[in-house]
Amino acid sequence: MQSPTHSAPIDPAAALSVVRVRVRFGETDLMGIVHHASYVSYLEVARIEWLRRRGVTYADWAAHGVHLPVVELSVKYRAPARFDEELDVHVSIAEIGAASVRFEYRIVRAVDGLLCTEGSTRLACIDAQLALRRISPEIAEFLRQPEHGP
Amino acid sequence: MQSPTHSAPIDPAAALSVVRVRVRFGETDLMGIVHHASYVSYLEVARIEWLRRRGVTYADWAAHGVHLPVVELSVKYRAPARFDEELDVHVSIAEIGAASVRFEYRIVRAVDGLLCTEGSTRLACIDAQLALRRISPEIAEFLRQPEHGP
Amino acid sequence: MQSPTHSAPIDPAAALSVVRVRVRFGETDLMGIVHHASYVSYLEVARIEWLRRRGVTYADWAAHGVHLPVVELSVKYRAPARFDEELDVHVSIAEIGAASVRFEYRIVRAVDGLLCTEGSTRLACIDAQLALRRISPEIAEFLRQPEHGP
Amino acid sequence: MQSPTHSAPIDPAAALSVVRVRVRFGETDLMGIVHHASYVSYLEVARIEWLRRRGVTYADWAAHGVHLPVVELSVKYRAPARFDEELDVHVSIAEIGAASVRFEYRIVRAVDGLLCTEGSTRLACIDAQLALRRISPEIAEFLRQPEHGP
Repeated sequence: MQSPTHSAPIDPAAALSVVRVRVRFGETDLMGIVHHASYVSYLEVARIEWLRRRGVTYADWAAHGVHLPVVELSVKYRAPARFDEELDVHVSIAEIGAASVRFEYRIVRAVDGLLCTEGSTRLACIDAQLALRRISPEIAEFLRQPEHGP
Repeated sequence: MQSPTHSAPIDPAAALSVVRVRVRFGETDLMGIVHHASYVSYLEVARIEWLRRRGVTYADWAAHGVHLPVVELSVKYRAPARFDEELDVHVSIAEIGAASVRFEYRIVRAVDGLLCTEGSTRLACIDAQLALRRISPEIAEFLRQPEHGP
Repeated sequence: MQSPTHSAPIDPAAALSVVRVRVRFGETDLMGIVHHASYVSYLEVARIEWLRRRGVTYADWAAHGVHLPVVELSVKYRAPARFDEELDVHVSIAEIGAASVRFEYRIVRAVDGLLCTEGSTRLACIDAQLALRRISPEIAEFLRQPEHGP
Repeated sequence: MQSPTHSAPIDPAAALSVVRVRVRFGETDLMGIVHHASYVSYLEVARIEWLRRRGVTYADWAAHGVHLPVVELSVKYRAPARFDEELDVHVSIAEIGAASVRFEYRIVRAVDGLLCTEGSTRLACIDAQLALRRISPEIAEFLRQPEHGP
């Protein structure tokens, strides 16, 4: 059973960050487009920046033995992105569970908003020994924050 | 509507290949385990080897303008794999559609069969101009073959 | 023999750009530090940004059939960088040859200037058919420009 | 000053291993050839296999706190390799120093022996705290061994 804190609804506006990445040359493949595995890296970059904008670095958490490895990943590829394009990753926290969280993503081309990719990741909360740990009320509250000012 | 060839059931025994990979050092991350994006590469390696064992190379297809980009990807991470471990990717064709195919995967640790990862990918059939093309009866028949002898 | 344009000395101030990157999680390895191959990607990112700040995108060049593949690479690793650190890649054009150019790099940790990596890459100028092409006086002049204003 | 064991000449025949890799799709780039950073991964795969064929796994060493990070890397790109090609990495130990070793590499296309890439890496011997440690006479002797039988 989840704690009341966890089951409270998530404010969609607070839950969203938009993180820009630029496609690297080595992230393309012989088809001339971004290789499908490269987007997995973009999701990760966006998720870590999402945390940073709420006042904590993943590195801080890792230093304290809290890790959030991906346990489920799904991606739908809608349109190809290409070398050197700027992409905006729209990343939102979608669920805060007892020992996991889920983020949703939409990657759009910055210049015109073309939807390139949609995705979702579930992350387990574990300690440095890879054992599952509950998401504490403090962490859950933290995850409900909007971005801070610059 | 699919052609009769496409809608014929798939023989599970014929559909399966098992492809071994060994975890590279650079495929791990600071948690000491295989980074989640690295598995996407293992799925790709296995899928291409699956084709090769049925008598065609992806490179041949690419040279003829047939590409099979991933349009949907889902992965569930069950247990971490580690550097230098040998992993067996069990890859099966699961669906042959009008213009796409779907493969399913189970990645197990070779030494003891521990299930590390399960996944699925849908691949569209496209030409060199990235336009969708139907899977012809010849290609569908090809995809129903078992592995050839060595 | 090089053209006079090519053999003119390079102005070190004009030749330099400083490009910031942040270490991605997947760029680390099980030692907890940035994997040595990841720096090769940082050099590439910096080199492409170096071109952009002088008014051309590599993508433009590629679209016109001009490519600059790396033909020589050397890297010395001085101190490890870690996940989430910001790194400043100091990239300078060092030589403009008849059909190749050479860039030099110093990667320092942004927070304190710690030297992490030094490197050099030689890039050949080739066309879309992978044939070598001379660096024209126009391209050489372009490569001597300083960064433009924002 | 090196110990006598370290300064003994290296037997070129014993020093060599040949390790085959196959180019992955995701290791190519939009030029249709293998991306230059991918070769760094091939060198690593070959070096780790070199150790294995002499009776020790890098993972064993890592578990005992011995790491061999790359501290110098140089690569010359001679001819492009392409997707799905089999490449033979000829890897030899070239120097055994006081606290570092150097390996040399030649990557040739398996089908016809075309030289694609030449390289060299120096690896420092360090412990789990990233502190330099001397290469003991036992390790030096180990590194002089030829490949074992299968």
